[in-house]
Amino acid sequence: MVKVSVLYGPPEDPAAFEEHYANTHLPLAAKMPKVARFEASKVIGDAPYYRIAELWFDSQEDLQAAMGSDEGQATTADIPKFASGGATVVISQVD
Amino acid sequence: MVKVSVLYGPPEDPAAFEEHYANTHLPLAAKMPKVARFEASKVIGDAPYYRIAELWFDSQEDLQAAMGSDEGQATTADIPKFASGGATVVISQVD
Repeated sequence: MVKVSVLYGPPEDPAAFEEHYANTHLPLAAKMPKVARFEASKVIGDAPYYRIAELWFDSQEDLQAAMGSDEGQATTADIPKFASGGATVVISQVD
Repeated sequence: MVKVSVLYGPPEDPAAFEEHYANTHLPLAAKMPKVARFEASKVIGDAPYYRIAELWFDSQEDLQAAMGSDEGQATTADIPKFASGGATVVISQVD
């Protein structure tokens, strides 16, 4: 499997982040095709990140199809609208 | 669930990292109690990290029991022996 990990930096306004994330971003992400599994989590304790979102795909082809779809592009384009602390995207091949 | 994400920075000697990781570190980690799920992956493409390892626990109590166990301490103590690019540990609460 292939995993996309989105590591969100600490936002300027956590309440505004949460509002946009829950009500706009997650519904957009839920429309993406080919996603085998999705997991969102909120960081606890000391760390350089505020939230993690991970998406698993069965193959790199599925990942590319998802990211290239209208829904994938809408999801990606939405990130700068709320991720005021930045977002580090890491793609990895699961062992 | 609670997730521990270990983000390994790019090592000085990837072959030496892989050898130690596969033959020493993963066997140590496999002995840790209370781990509900484990996933290791290798980063592909441009990113500030080289590998990701994630461990899921049913609760924060399970996480603390795992990290406090002899096996958890041996696993943690092993990280500096091969992670020449550093390791960022992020603990998060799954939504």
